[in-house]
Amino acid sequence: MIHTISILVRNEAGVLSRISDLFSGRGYNIESLTVAPTLDTDYSRVTIVTNGDDKVIEQITKQLNRLIPTIKVMDLPVADCIEREFIMCKVSAKEENRSEILRIAEIFNAKVIDVTNRSYTLQAFGDERQIRSLIELLRPIGIRELVRSGKVVISRENQFQNIKNGQDL
Amino acid sequence: MIHTISILVRNEAGVLSRISDLFSGRGYNIESLTVAPTLDTDYSRVTIVTNGDDKVIEQITKQLNRLIPTIKVMDLPVADCIEREFIMCKVSAKEENRSEILRIAEIFNAKVIDVTNRSYTLQAFGDERQIRSLIELLRPIGIRELVRSGKVVISRENQFQNIKNGQDL
Repeated sequence: MIHTISILVRNEAGVLSRISDLFSGRGYNIESLTVAPTLDTDYSRVTIVTNGDDKVIEQITKQLNRLIPTIKVMDLPVADCIEREFIMCKVSAKEENRSEILRIAEIFNAKVIDVTNRSYTLQAFGDERQIRSLIELLRPIGIRELVRSGKVVISRENQFQNIKNGQDL
Repeated sequence: MIHTISILVRNEAGVLSRISDLFSGRGYNIESLTVAPTLDTDYSRVTIVTNGDDKVIEQITKQLNRLIPTIKVMDLPVADCIEREFIMCKVSAKEENRSEILRIAEIFNAKVIDVTNRSYTLQAFGDERQIRSLIELLRPIGIRELVRSGKVVISRENQFQNIKNGQDL
């Protein structure tokens, strides 16, 4: 089962290796991971997407909680959060394909951000299903390069509030 | 100096810890990191933003190249690539602030993706400067939660081509 785990950590050298070691030590692949500073730059938020057995994920979550710089770990149920992924995609733009690329871009609210005489580069964001559909539609046209942000997640209710002296992060 | 490093790796357990160890071993903080599969799901692309001395970054890049599952490492000059970051931001929406939030959203092409009676959640993407400005404008209104994707980067020319049997990744 796919799990999205959101971890709030104090910025310290080595935090990321400790987190990724927990997964690789169990032979679990991290499908995607993003880490970036929060509003308070002493802290970062790590979002991990992984595919694994519920029990093992529970164990990993408990161990993450025991890591000193970890402030808060959440295994997020899909219903309680908004998930988005951002991609940039360079597509082969032969003359006969150009209008089709622009049609697909319009449907997915994607934006052309770079054009050469042989390629169009699109940027798009959406949930997992939308991103997958967009990639599948562009694939037969010829994807030359694909860059994905990995999933980022925000809670529908503010579950990260009041963690550090009542301040939001 | 800020460096954006893009690394193409084979998907193997432990790759991420080896990469992050290289940074933490030198006491270098990774400012943001994203990892997500490429079109060929046997490979992932890692994008790292770090702040450091040019020489040390050069050493790190060389060591990354020596890691077995690393296919290609690039320290990307800003001019040769398109950089984007994606954020979701939950802002306190007192009645007197709502029209100001929507005005700011419009300027930055941000989209309201969730509304409660006390908060608006926006999604936006842009380059570093745009994201920084957006956050600074929203900060005085009251940011309740901020989630960032970290920087993702795509080359203006297709520099990742022909790496694996002439196939694009």
